[in-house]
Amino acid sequence: MLLCVGSVAYDVIEIPQREPVEVLGGSATWFCAAASLFARPSLVAVVGDDFREDDRAFLEHRGVDLAGLERRPGATFRWHGRYHDDLQGRDSLATELGVFAEFRPVIPPDLRAPDVLFLGNIAPDLQGLVLAQARGAGFTALDTIECWMEPPHRDRLLRLLPRTDLLFLNDDEVRLLSGERGVMRAARRLLDDFGARAVVVKRGEHGAMLFRSTSPAPERGRDPAPSPDATDDRTAPSRPDIRLFPAFPIESVVDPTGAGDSFAGGVLGYLDRVGRFDGETLCDALAVGTVVASFSVEGFGPRHFDRVTPSAFEARLRRYGDMVGFRRDEVLGVLSRPPARES
Amino acid sequence: MLLCVGSVAYDVIEIPQREPVEVLGGSATWFCAAASLFARPSLVAVVGDDFREDDRAFLEHRGVDLAGLERRPGATFRWHGRYHDDLQGRDSLATELGVFAEFRPVIPPDLRAPDVLFLGNIAPDLQGLVLAQARGAGFTALDTIECWMEPPHRDRLLRLLPRTDLLFLNDDEVRLLSGERGVMRAARRLLDDFGARAVVVKRGEHGAMLFRSTSPAPERGRDPAPSPDATDDRTAPSRPDIRLFPAFPIESVVDPTGAGDSFAGGVLGYLDRVGRFDGETLCDALAVGTVVASFSVEGFGPRHFDRVTPSAFEARLRRYGDMVGFRRDEVLGVLSRPPARES
Repeated sequence: MLLCVGSVAYDVIEIPQREPVEVLGGSATWFCAAASLFARPSLVAVVGDDFREDDRAFLEHRGVDLAGLERRPGATFRWHGRYHDDLQGRDSLATELGVFAEFRPVIPPDLRAPDVLFLGNIAPDLQGLVLAQARGAGFTALDTIECWMEPPHRDRLLRLLPRTDLLFLNDDEVRLLSGERGVMRAARRLLDDFGARAVVVKRGEHGAMLFRSTSPAPERGRDPAPSPDATDDRTAPSRPDIRLFPAFPIESVVDPTGAGDSFAGGVLGYLDRVGRFDGETLCDALAVGTVVASFSVEGFGPRHFDRVTPSAFEARLRRYGDMVGFRRDEVLGVLSRPPARES
Repeated sequence: MLLCVGSVAYDVIEIPQREPVEVLGGSATWFCAAASLFARPSLVAVVGDDFREDDRAFLEHRGVDLAGLERRPGATFRWHGRYHDDLQGRDSLATELGVFAEFRPVIPPDLRAPDVLFLGNIAPDLQGLVLAQARGAGFTALDTIECWMEPPHRDRLLRLLPRTDLLFLNDDEVRLLSGERGVMRAARRLLDDFGARAVVVKRGEHGAMLFRSTSPAPERGRDPAPSPDATDDRTAPSRPDIRLFPAFPIESVVDPTGAGDSFAGGVLGYLDRVGRFDGETLCDALAVGTVVASFSVEGFGPRHFDRVTPSAFEARLRRYGDMVGFRRDEVLGVLSRPPARES
């Protein structure tokens, strides 16, 4: 079973040269819509009494279990964003928390031992509350954003890292969290000094990188404090296991909102479907997430996933497989032989 | 035989927080130093009488044939660049053409039918001069930069596209040359409307993308004029063959100068070594070029390639092979079976 805790929201999205659009949004919504391609996610979140019946029906029809979706008097979380011309940078014009301001996630008793747990982007103390309730999770992933990397949230966030199996961050976030400017060094720092076990660095249209520690994992439940000085007395830096997932190229990107949560939904939905969390399965899951994210940017809002039939997904996954990789053994063979012709 | 025509220069490189460094540079120098890992390139270029003997000796020791390296009275081409803090953007502080201003490439008669020809970044009319002399080339690749995409050079450059097999451009260049803002659309336009056969889009630390036309290649020697209006009456856009080559991640980038030419040198050096130019061999060559470029940024100047032993190259190529790809058939198998567990 796949459990997701995060936000459900209404977004107003402004894309250059288009009319503003209001759509269903929020990290948990995008995640569940994407994960529902492979699994039946359970959603724990809060909405206001303005939450529309057809939006609830959309999630139900996607197979999302809404038993943990709390409805409270007040307004659903609203976000208003405006994208820059390159569709990469964006400004938040307004954020109205509504009922989300009072959100204290309560995990229904029958959901406290999920196979896979996704802690979507909410305050680290709330993510910690979820972790404390869902102790039986088989595999835990966490997403967060820059605003939780400053005091007083920062310390709470750092304490979660050794307790999660997979951390989703973008370029800027991995730099800010680690204090290192280069992405490689930043990711290694999170593994070596901050207790993270695996870090996915999301790079938008450039894809994603997976960094995994090659040293033995500490025992689950242990909580080693970050040791920022460890680099000073280390002679040989660790060499993390690195895997590269270039983005599936999309000619007509409509709206990048939700791509990161869709990516995570694809990754964790696939892991839940397989029921194994070994390294190669995780890499397969990241390829699946990459393809899922490519669908998410082709339209506004998570309803776009209704168009992603199994055969459409499979066709794109096949194409992605054709796009990546090379014949390593062929190349090594060529280089091991003397040049065929001398001129 | 691999022939390269381009510039040989002395560069002054300023990297933030470092003293300025003067090093051997120029597109042809970098290209040949990189290609010499796999082949014995022949260099056609011009230097002044200030060209240092030890630089000539370096190229000879790399196995570069210097019969076509002209020495003229005057100064060797000099470039002074300053990198921004991110090591991506850079400013040209000074460019002194010296003897390069009078360069009229003359291909020695025995080099006029190379297996592989690289037209390094020089004025398109000079690249055209080389093409006219080296009509017997088996495979021709061209690199260029933004300054040749404005009148009066632009038309001369466009006329070369249908006469080359592979075009090397970076993100900005592919956009400027095509007039399209998105990289995908831009590359497709070059294939569909400008007569290019294959385009490599270089994206620096994010790697490279290969776009190849899937429509039959026009006959060599034909010179279809670009038809900028062709998109308007086309109903179904072509679907180019796309291959993705994420960069080999480097933790300590010292100097990115020459990475693009090193990449091209690795690609074409490998193609010359294999002696075949089919699609899969080209993809292997792009993986080789990706690994070669990763070495080039680890130090200043092309002498750094002396440290790249065959076993160092092979080890990094193996690592790169481990970093890319996923188990497509495994994933398709998982998705074709019903979920193992329902909860």
